[in-house]
Amino acid sequence: MLIIDCHGHYTTAPDAHQNFRDQQMARLKDPLAPAPTAARISDDEIRETIEKNQLKLQKQRGADITIFSPRASAMAHHVGDEEVSQQWTRACNDLIKRVVDLYPQNFVGVCQLPQSPGVPISHSVRELERCVTELGFVGCNLNPDPSGGHWTAPPLTDKHWYPFYEKMTELDVPAMIHVSASCNPNFHATGAHYINADTTAFMQFIEGDLFKDFPKLRFIIPHGGGAVPYHWGRYRGLADMLKRPALAQHVMKNVFFDTCVYHQPGIDLLVKVIDIDNILFGSEMVGAVRGIDPETGHYFDDTKRYIDALSIPDADKRRIFAGNVRRVFPKLDAILKARGQ
Amino acid sequence: MLIIDCHGHYTTAPDAHQNFRDQQMARLKDPLAPAPTAARISDDEIRETIEKNQLKLQKQRGADITIFSPRASAMAHHVGDEEVSQQWTRACNDLIKRVVDLYPQNFVGVCQLPQSPGVPISHSVRELERCVTELGFVGCNLNPDPSGGHWTAPPLTDKHWYPFYEKMTELDVPAMIHVSASCNPNFHATGAHYINADTTAFMQFIEGDLFKDFPKLRFIIPHGGGAVPYHWGRYRGLADMLKRPALAQHVMKNVFFDTCVYHQPGIDLLVKVIDIDNILFGSEMVGAVRGIDPETGHYFDDTKRYIDALSIPDADKRRIFAGNVRRVFPKLDAILKARGQ
Repeated sequence: MLIIDCHGHYTTAPDAHQNFRDQQMARLKDPLAPAPTAARISDDEIRETIEKNQLKLQKQRGADITIFSPRASAMAHHVGDEEVSQQWTRACNDLIKRVVDLYPQNFVGVCQLPQSPGVPISHSVRELERCVTELGFVGCNLNPDPSGGHWTAPPLTDKHWYPFYEKMTELDVPAMIHVSASCNPNFHATGAHYINADTTAFMQFIEGDLFKDFPKLRFIIPHGGGAVPYHWGRYRGLADMLKRPALAQHVMKNVFFDTCVYHQPGIDLLVKVIDIDNILFGSEMVGAVRGIDPETGHYFDDTKRYIDALSIPDADKRRIFAGNVRRVFPKLDAILKARGQ
Repeated sequence: MLIIDCHGHYTTAPDAHQNFRDQQMARLKDPLAPAPTAARISDDEIRETIEKNQLKLQKQRGADITIFSPRASAMAHHVGDEEVSQQWTRACNDLIKRVVDLYPQNFVGVCQLPQSPGVPISHSVRELERCVTELGFVGCNLNPDPSGGHWTAPPLTDKHWYPFYEKMTELDVPAMIHVSASCNPNFHATGAHYINADTTAFMQFIEGDLFKDFPKLRFIIPHGGGAVPYHWGRYRGLADMLKRPALAQHVMKNVFFDTCVYHQPGIDLLVKVIDIDNILFGSEMVGAVRGIDPETGHYFDDTKRYIDALSIPDADKRRIFAGNVRRVFPKLDAILKARGQ
């Protein structure tokens, strides 16, 4: 059974990559500081960080391929201006490309975008195009809140975002909706901001009519869809109160949830209330929660175990582990088919 | 079996009450508009709105008592200045008191607070004291985001809030953490802002050490604890990553979740992962979701049905329906004991 993890970030990148970022930050504080110099990273350094972490765990846990993108919390679109974001984003995406080139059987790339608060999203179109057409990436991570917890951008259903959706549709790539670090002290990044953003995006899609305008647009809402499956009755009821069509027609042709839910009862609920076709296997390892669950003796983020334990037909597991991911990421499907997989 | 609904709002208040609010709003736009005149509301008007709605449903669904507070979405602390909030809050709380006086067997009061963005929370202490000591209320609703979706207040663990917690402790009353309407277009009030606030508050409690300073402080996180039970593994894992004590000791002696989760699988999960002692029966009817679930033929917010359907001992159901509520709201317990209940 082919197993594709749709949600992995390069959270273990070599120090030189962070040094470049630190130089960017230093220059924001002191414009006379030296211009950041591109990180010099050897293939061996990349191999070491990948083989000791993501690749090791991928093999130990029995996954085959990870859809791999830059570290989400480090995107930090709120830091500096558009130029800073463009430089950092390019460096991050180029590094992902090198990982994919070193391990083409194990990783496929998804890009970060050079978003910046108040900057039109159309300025991110070129980097998406570069990553898909030149680097061979299969999707992108779209940040609904480049302000980092102040939520100053318009909702995802606003026409502000349309130029980007047009390019996504043209390239036939999906976006994972993924915020980054929070600079609002109310929101812990991985414990509040991430989950809130997931919930918020879903509710925006209920309120709006985005998928009438873009019937082929596809979004992955990560972290198991935020609060949505747990409150599935609430969302079905709110759609009804707002006189929207049923969610199956109105939203769920275009929106998918990953399985980054770190305990068995959560995964049980997800699979019980959400159609199997809308669930994509994901772990976000090595990510927000790296420890071992004392209740099970296994890593919290070893989400494959939770799927394995489900009492559902093998055909359904195959859809979660691979079929749905290939459908949502057609460029990945094409890569796999070319390899005979 | 005594059944206490810990979460009801007066969402059906007579028009005259809203007229008072409309006059406040008109004056914010035009300072020359007439000063708001106190709403004249007859007992019969109150009886009609209550008997046709909350009381009717309370009886139909088989609950005995509702812990009743002003409409949460109408608190709108972000509208106008502190004086506007003080006047509106007083009018709202006084109206709750009249409902309780008309139906003392069926309703017990919980107050709204005269919060206002940027205003110290100490300015809300007097209204809490008035409601508890003069009006006989048993708790309050505390808004962690008086800005209405801009999240400009400090986290709930910040010393900013301590003067209020001191008064809560002195009076021995709990607070439900409940935001109000959202003026940020990203956040639908009941579909995103409410649930996000629940999740956010819980994560703040994990990060902080509030209950070391206030070991007797008690909070209800409504809407089933936001996203928390669904992501219980994530929160256990994050507490571990942040080197906090286990959640049972660190947070769950002081934090309780209600059962405002509008489908059976959600309630099943809640009861599976959260200790029974931390679960309080609540419906929030007549509230955010008023329709009938086409999958069951019953009202989404008839949450008693979901508890009834659980395969847990009757003793556990009694704790959810009454025992835990009486423990968290000792002033309600005293009222009931004085009645021989």
